[in-house]
Amino acid sequence: MVGLNQLMEDEVFTAFASYTTIILLKMMLMSTTTAFYRMTRKVFANPEDCASYGKGEDIKKYLRTDDNVERVRRAHLNDLENIVPFLGIGLLYSLSGPDPSTAILHFRLFVGARIYHTMAYLAPLPQPNRALGFFIGYGVTFSMAYSLLKNRLYL
Amino acid sequence: MVGLNQLMEDEVFTAFASYTTIILLKMMLMSTTTAFYRMTRKVFANPEDCASYGKGEDIKKYLRTDDNVERVRRAHLNDLENIVPFLGIGLLYSLSGPDPSTAILHFRLFVGARIYHTMAYLAPLPQPNRALGFFIGYGVTFSMAYSLLKNRLYL
Amino acid sequence: MVGLNQLMEDEVFTAFASYTTIILLKMMLMSTTTAFYRMTRKVFANPEDCASYGKGEDIKKYLRTDDNVERVRRAHLNDLENIVPFLGIGLLYSLSGPDPSTAILHFRLFVGARIYHTMAYLAPLPQPNRALGFFIGYGVTFSMAYSLLKNRLYL
Repeated sequence: MVGLNQLMEDEVFTAFASYTTIILLKMMLMSTTTAFYRMTRKVFANPEDCASYGKGEDIKKYLRTDDNVERVRRAHLNDLENIVPFLGIGLLYSLSGPDPSTAILHFRLFVGARIYHTMAYLAPLPQPNRALGFFIGYGVTFSMAYSLLKNRLYL
Repeated sequence: MVGLNQLMEDEVFTAFASYTTIILLKMMLMSTTTAFYRMTRKVFANPEDCASYGKGEDIKKYLRTDDNVERVRRAHLNDLENIVPFLGIGLLYSLSGPDPSTAILHFRLFVGARIYHTMAYLAPLPQPNRALGFFIGYGVTFSMAYSLLKNRLYL
Repeated sequence: MVGLNQLMEDEVFTAFASYTTIILLKMMLMSTTTAFYRMTRKVFANPEDCASYGKGEDIKKYLRTDDNVERVRRAHLNDLENIVPFLGIGLLYSLSGPDPSTAILHFRLFVGARIYHTMAYLAPLPQPNRALGFFIGYGVTFSMAYSLLKNRLYL
């Protein structure tokens, strides 16, 4: 298994693995945040989720939407929409032999920007805080894609 | 291409490839399930999708939401939110040289838990069936992330 | 780093990297398209996003849904639901040593079908244009999954 060991001894790939794991864990926290808001505010999407609060017609009042729950859900979906491209493009970029310090700068900026985006979304901070977090992450992914396509486009 | 062949002869990586393919196929089935409910219940999101049922004002009654369609869509989104972290963290974990039997146990638990989650969501089964499916899958991903960061954190 | 260099000199893997980067960039464009529609139509989901248009009660009229914005968002979510399986299954398929010309045909068909799907969704074109784009992409991913599981199932 020489090939495999080499992969995990590569500086860029190991850094990519660490930053990706961190940002995916952050994204997973959005699920528990949604669940937390749903429980404390008693706002549910499924009748079976609030069955312990009552029966029949009593339950209907818990099946509603709530501004705070919807806010967390939008932040979660925005994470998905931006972390999936980072995952794919970042993996391929890491394997394309980039300069280590440039690559690690990209990963750090992305992870920092997405954490800032979530904080700005949930606080909520006034704009353009959230927009800034979004566009830095977006720009980092775009920059890695540009570097990939410039060096190794094969169609 | 020695490196490539080695990858696909690695026991953990081949198991990861099989389980990932299965769970992604399961997720893809959610699209056709949604389409099936939309067709049989005549519930559409786009005017062009129900154009064969009528014209102009006649169409509006088909552009609505339906509890069963929304339920499948929530199950699908929950899949996306949980399978994306498994995909990223699981891939990196598979490449980090884990003990094969531990790794394969992780993959089996995740795939089983997510299939159970979908069944509990669509039936629907009373809680905490769906919560159980969710948290086992969540815990498996978390455990792989912990193992990755403990052994190879590089920031 | 022999293993790494070999990966990026492999014809199939390099092609997968190029097509994946292109389709992920296309998906990222959906975010800016949504933002564009939100700004030009003044339709927002968060109070802080339209704070510059007024204060207090004045803002409420901007917090609404709009058919065109919802259409772009549905196209974006459909992208996510289909590109994530392509990313996972396509990566594993690329590493499983497929015939290069077959593999590249798969990637081309998928990318073409998804671009066509987006055009059909946003225009909108009458059905079955969008369905055609969807099912070609779906079939390509399914075909790669079948090839993977047939050759290397390991459970």
